[in-house]
Amino acid sequence: MNVPQAQDVPLLAYLHNTVRYEDQQVILLNRRLYPEETTYVVCEDYQQVAEAIEDMTIQGAIVIAIAAGYGFALALKQNPEWSGQTLAQYAEEVYQRLLATRPTGQRLKVILDKCLTEIKPAIEAGKQADDVAEQLIAFMNQEVAEADQIAIDCGKYTANLLKDGDRVLTHCFADSALIHMLLEAKKQKKHIEMYCTETRPYFQGARLTAHSIKETGTKVTLVTDNMPGFLMEQGMITALVTAADKITLEGHICNKIGTYQYAVVAQHHNIPFYVLGYEGPDENSPSTDQIEIEFRQADEVFYARGVRTAIEGIEGLYPSFDIVSPNFVDAIVTHKGVFAARNIREHLEK
Amino acid sequence: MNVPQAQDVPLLAYLHNTVRYEDQQVILLNRRLYPEETTYVVCEDYQQVAEAIEDMTIQGAIVIAIAAGYGFALALKQNPEWSGQTLAQYAEEVYQRLLATRPTGQRLKVILDKCLTEIKPAIEAGKQADDVAEQLIAFMNQEVAEADQIAIDCGKYTANLLKDGDRVLTHCFADSALIHMLLEAKKQKKHIEMYCTETRPYFQGARLTAHSIKETGTKVTLVTDNMPGFLMEQGMITALVTAADKITLEGHICNKIGTYQYAVVAQHHNIPFYVLGYEGPDENSPSTDQIEIEFRQADEVFYARGVRTAIEGIEGLYPSFDIVSPNFVDAIVTHKGVFAARNIREHLEK
Repeated sequence: MNVPQAQDVPLLAYLHNTVRYEDQQVILLNRRLYPEETTYVVCEDYQQVAEAIEDMTIQGAIVIAIAAGYGFALALKQNPEWSGQTLAQYAEEVYQRLLATRPTGQRLKVILDKCLTEIKPAIEAGKQADDVAEQLIAFMNQEVAEADQIAIDCGKYTANLLKDGDRVLTHCFADSALIHMLLEAKKQKKHIEMYCTETRPYFQGARLTAHSIKETGTKVTLVTDNMPGFLMEQGMITALVTAADKITLEGHICNKIGTYQYAVVAQHHNIPFYVLGYEGPDENSPSTDQIEIEFRQADEVFYARGVRTAIEGIEGLYPSFDIVSPNFVDAIVTHKGVFAARNIREHLEK
Repeated sequence: MNVPQAQDVPLLAYLHNTVRYEDQQVILLNRRLYPEETTYVVCEDYQQVAEAIEDMTIQGAIVIAIAAGYGFALALKQNPEWSGQTLAQYAEEVYQRLLATRPTGQRLKVILDKCLTEIKPAIEAGKQADDVAEQLIAFMNQEVAEADQIAIDCGKYTANLLKDGDRVLTHCFADSALIHMLLEAKKQKKHIEMYCTETRPYFQGARLTAHSIKETGTKVTLVTDNMPGFLMEQGMITALVTAADKITLEGHICNKIGTYQYAVVAQHHNIPFYVLGYEGPDENSPSTDQIEIEFRQADEVFYARGVRTAIEGIEGLYPSFDIVSPNFVDAIVTHKGVFAARNIREHLEK
């Protein structure tokens, strides 16, 4: 596998280190164990890919979308001789199964729609599944290359917004664009310090984010999810930067639960909130009506890394995402540049 | 030990269930294990009491103050025949040691000052430490009885503020006044539902709070510390209620880290914030200059219930408390009634 990674670049800077297709298998970095262990889950069929997305073996809006795309190709490989109506119907079933894994992020549907569009003519031309799969794998490899470049550009534009000496709070794991932002800031000789929330219940911040930031050579300080307000009030934070699982055409941000409360407090203290917007808004989401907030098993808030932390016999609630209105967002940064949240439609026109 | 507890009243409703003096021992409920285990730590000398306060075997502003008071008496019992100048000097050392355990809460100093005032005449009159200790134990028992009554009254006045159908968010463990608030609301036939944060890093909310609320027969739903903003934005919360470790004469609230960010978001959504203020403001704290925010070992944010949750080799920060200005507080409720935060001085005049 050709991974464009220098020795000193964080592992999560490039998508193929997290998800790739090899020898009729989809290979996924187990993000529930990384970075303590760098182990890969090998999926032999597309149902395993769907389950890995559902149980958060892998997470992150782009990562799950890419995994689903390769999973789609794997599904075709499982029945290599199918064709015609049988194949068309099967492709639809696979599409629905993969789409149903996580409801909130925009990229999963975008990629799966692209996959369908990519393979439809081939199926209609009577090609066998094996050939269609090869075409889809090539298509997905191209998508990965483009997504990596999008993350690099998005990170660079965001680095341009940062000032030398900034102390940046981030929440959850903003994925590769955050890494590229920090690498670019280094090139620009801007000294940046990072603060990250641990991000309950899965501790993405305490693990993926803290580790990836550390790999860039940037100082990182971990706090629990109840501490950001205090840091802001004390003047310890000069910018808030997160990713977004979905961006509406009106400039709403849907992101990991907690983003909303940090955005409200940041605005109260005139701390700018920059969103790593990657490839921009979801064309199919004019406003928040098109966002379905995923509620995961309430039980998951009762545990930390497999250890019971709550008493028995109570209710729990686990909304995975929240929505921040454009009023609270100073800029959405995409691979095309910096946009005011309210004007994010300009990204589509550029 | 006479504990005024009916079968169906939560254990933490009364202080003697958490801390008491018996047979030259200070007996402390281990709040790091409760409610999964109801085990008591037996302190044979006052240093052990100080360490139990420091390592959060017991926590809660009132509880640690009462423990320190009994610890003071135990210290005197350890040298029963001392008197005069030796005893006076020893009493001063004990006072300083116990005061140094936790810097932020107001009640620890208030109780220790009262203890000194209580025993000073006896020491000056030449009494032996054993006799002085007996006097101090009787004094502390009286303090406990008064503190229990204060919590009952504070809880009742707060229940009066609640409306039938309220959905109340609380953070950390607001101790016995929260329990009495809910018991009183039941008497008033007000149906209240509670939401509580788990409260990292020690999970007081997931354990002490959730358990005590459940014991009152009130429905309780647990969320992680990044979720309250979303709940408020969704209209799921109609009131915020917490305790305060310290209240200034200007009406600032110093409470468990996180209280500030929830107060800011609550105000943004016009959700009232009521503070269980127990015996009122600290007469020695005109404003926030007199508050020392305790920073605990940064290492503590890397663990959950003893399990490592963060990667190695990063920085951590653990401010234990934050400060909420009176602008964000709708009412401070004490055993004397309901006060606007700005007017909390009226409590002293009443």
